[in-house]
Amino acid sequence: MSKALRIGVAGLGTVGIGVIKLLREQADLLEARAGVALTVSAICARDKDRDRGINLSGLVWHDDPVSLANSPDIDIFVELIGGSEGPARLSVEAALKAGKPVVTANKALIAHHGMSLAQAADSSGVALSYEAAVAGGIPIIKAIREGLVGNRISSLQGILNGTCNYILTTMRDTGRAFDDVLAEAQELGYAEADPSFDVDGVDAAHKLAILASLAFGAEIDFDAVYIEGIRAIGSDDMAYAEEFGLRIKLLGIAEDTPDGLVQRVHPVMVPATSPMAAVEGVFNAVVTEGDFVGLSVLEGRGAGEGPTASAVVADIVDIACDRAGHAFGVPVNRLKKRATLPIERHTGAYYIRLVVLDQPGVMADITAALRDNGVSLENVIQRGHDPEAPVTVVLTVHETDEASLLAALAIIEKLDSVVEKPHMIRIEAS
Amino acid sequence: MSKALRIGVAGLGTVGIGVIKLLREQADLLEARAGVALTVSAICARDKDRDRGINLSGLVWHDDPVSLANSPDIDIFVELIGGSEGPARLSVEAALKAGKPVVTANKALIAHHGMSLAQAADSSGVALSYEAAVAGGIPIIKAIREGLVGNRISSLQGILNGTCNYILTTMRDTGRAFDDVLAEAQELGYAEADPSFDVDGVDAAHKLAILASLAFGAEIDFDAVYIEGIRAIGSDDMAYAEEFGLRIKLLGIAEDTPDGLVQRVHPVMVPATSPMAAVEGVFNAVVTEGDFVGLSVLEGRGAGEGPTASAVVADIVDIACDRAGHAFGVPVNRLKKRATLPIERHTGAYYIRLVVLDQPGVMADITAALRDNGVSLENVIQRGHDPEAPVTVVLTVHETDEASLLAALAIIEKLDSVVEKPHMIRIEAS
Repeated sequence: MSKALRIGVAGLGTVGIGVIKLLREQADLLEARAGVALTVSAICARDKDRDRGINLSGLVWHDDPVSLANSPDIDIFVELIGGSEGPARLSVEAALKAGKPVVTANKALIAHHGMSLAQAADSSGVALSYEAAVAGGIPIIKAIREGLVGNRISSLQGILNGTCNYILTTMRDTGRAFDDVLAEAQELGYAEADPSFDVDGVDAAHKLAILASLAFGAEIDFDAVYIEGIRAIGSDDMAYAEEFGLRIKLLGIAEDTPDGLVQRVHPVMVPATSPMAAVEGVFNAVVTEGDFVGLSVLEGRGAGEGPTASAVVADIVDIACDRAGHAFGVPVNRLKKRATLPIERHTGAYYIRLVVLDQPGVMADITAALRDNGVSLENVIQRGHDPEAPVTVVLTVHETDEASLLAALAIIEKLDSVVEKPHMIRIEAS
Repeated sequence: MSKALRIGVAGLGTVGIGVIKLLREQADLLEARAGVALTVSAICARDKDRDRGINLSGLVWHDDPVSLANSPDIDIFVELIGGSEGPARLSVEAALKAGKPVVTANKALIAHHGMSLAQAADSSGVALSYEAAVAGGIPIIKAIREGLVGNRISSLQGILNGTCNYILTTMRDTGRAFDDVLAEAQELGYAEADPSFDVDGVDAAHKLAILASLAFGAEIDFDAVYIEGIRAIGSDDMAYAEEFGLRIKLLGIAEDTPDGLVQRVHPVMVPATSPMAAVEGVFNAVVTEGDFVGLSVLEGRGAGEGPTASAVVADIVDIACDRAGHAFGVPVNRLKKRATLPIERHTGAYYIRLVVLDQPGVMADITAALRDNGVSLENVIQRGHDPEAPVTVVLTVHETDEASLLAALAIIEKLDSVVEKPHMIRIEAS
């Protein structure tokens, strides 16, 4: 056991430093488990002189991640730069071309270029591993690819973005508004200065596209993911959900149907007693449904230094043990191109919040629009009554197809007494 | 991809038949994922002529599992006979000695002989895989051994026996008594004709001992597991738990402490809002705590044909892909012999139910016994008042060490007014 596996780490942010710390602190444990010493030999970041709180002397420094990727000093290339283009993409491509296995935490890169990168990995016969790209604290990639390998997975759903889940949990607990809670999350470091990737659902969509590919044996199709974020969720929506025994979560949902794949990320109201409702704060969770195994639920921290470093190191050990396999479980050329089922074909129950002038006949107009489109009302709440100011009307409707609901909402939106664009949130039974 | 991996299945009960069904139904999928066809070539069971509902013609029949294990017709030996001794043990030993990888669902075998079997596997350089032995529907062995490989795990707890969880869930939902619900579970096939392995906690203890070994890098020490089953749980305990905001679960708990390993299986009251409280019916769940990853929760079906077959096949694919590794994550000789922390050193809160004669001074005597042993009372409930018949008194006490509590209970038990041996249930904070 004299030979060491030399690791090159590109990107020395929180996660990069976490990986180096973990490899050092657990060196003995990891050598026993991997059967070989795992040592960081070379690094790369934008600013060589910044104090990162750990001793980096003795490590070969590269200014350019592509030069690190090509360096003869490393056996494994770990990409923790981020972003779907630029240095992250170029360096991963270079490493794979040079026949070096790659470990990355970069969901944007895999969601956009996973197929060509996996092809490059297959061609070179090396690993492309990305456990840390989806829900760092949950070994979900390994669970789907290996643990559930005997199953056809028919559906999966997940709370895939800790920032959104933290914001929604805090909004519910405190009754505060989205902007207010977002600002606090930014101060606490739970949200980025530019939060749009998180709160607009893009980050969750990257992860969902990766999971769907792996679970269904399909080519990644990120552009086919329907995406809605959480900016439009009001504190009143939170309160009404509670009243209906529901909770609002940002879910990523993927289903394998005979008519095509469903891939959607949007706010959902789920029963307060459902497993997803109980996943709070910065935790992530993924539920899968396999034909032999039934439901499996995995839950853990979604991101952060420790959980993400843990996932990166798990990938490194898999490579050290020569057990990483194909990036998507089968050779890339065996993944199928699949049609997408558009969101208009979704069927389900819905919550609708309207702001209306409290005039005679307004409720008759609204309910007529629903009826004329075959949408059946379940609950109506209108509280108070104010001839001077608009009032809120909340409806829930029974299962319907989304196209019918959208047709009804288009009519409702045009009513003179309806003063805001209708707010709609999908309800999931489980 | 012309070569097929030939599988020998010993034991054709529900799980054995499930494995054969899965391998047949998913043959194409599995060949794509494993890179080689997986075919059952030979089988063995006690009764050759029994109709098992599937076509077994064309498979080589063995009357003796040892002869199957030694047969040149198979590349992998799958042991689904059960039991820690006899044919199961002999055939697994024979297969390993013959240099054949083994997949087993047999927790009793691994809990009792896992060390010597893993040693035999290491000596022959073949795999000994047992994902199906613990919580079939949850890839927990793989998650701990590979997914969390970068972590020192400090503790784990699990609902590891679906039969007990089903009984406890049904008792709570219906208010019915243990014997009544057990009889129903037996009719429904959720409990064995001889239920003692399940309801007395032995099955959960087998699984806990395996998980503890894997998580802590320790030699399996089944005899060190403290075991209490669920037979003594009354419907009144269920009702009182509910009143305190708690639920009763049979948990397996393992902790790595500086003074030794904790391994205990017993009924526990947990907060009704805790993740474990939400695991209902035949579901299993395992929570692990790792130093970098934090808390991870895995939940799924514990047993049954489909989930167990799914786990067996996952192990077969790992072997086909040559990625099974060491049975306990490291070579057996690197596992450490660890001391056990006896249950008397446990500290925690407790629930106590007493049946007493409603005489003057009885409460004073009880509370004095607690006080004299340094045990601090939290709640007392005594309802009604009947000079003719014994009444129930329920207490909860703040965190104390178990030795002190037992000393107090020994005194309480001897009081003239106390007419039954005190019933005690440990309370866990999370």
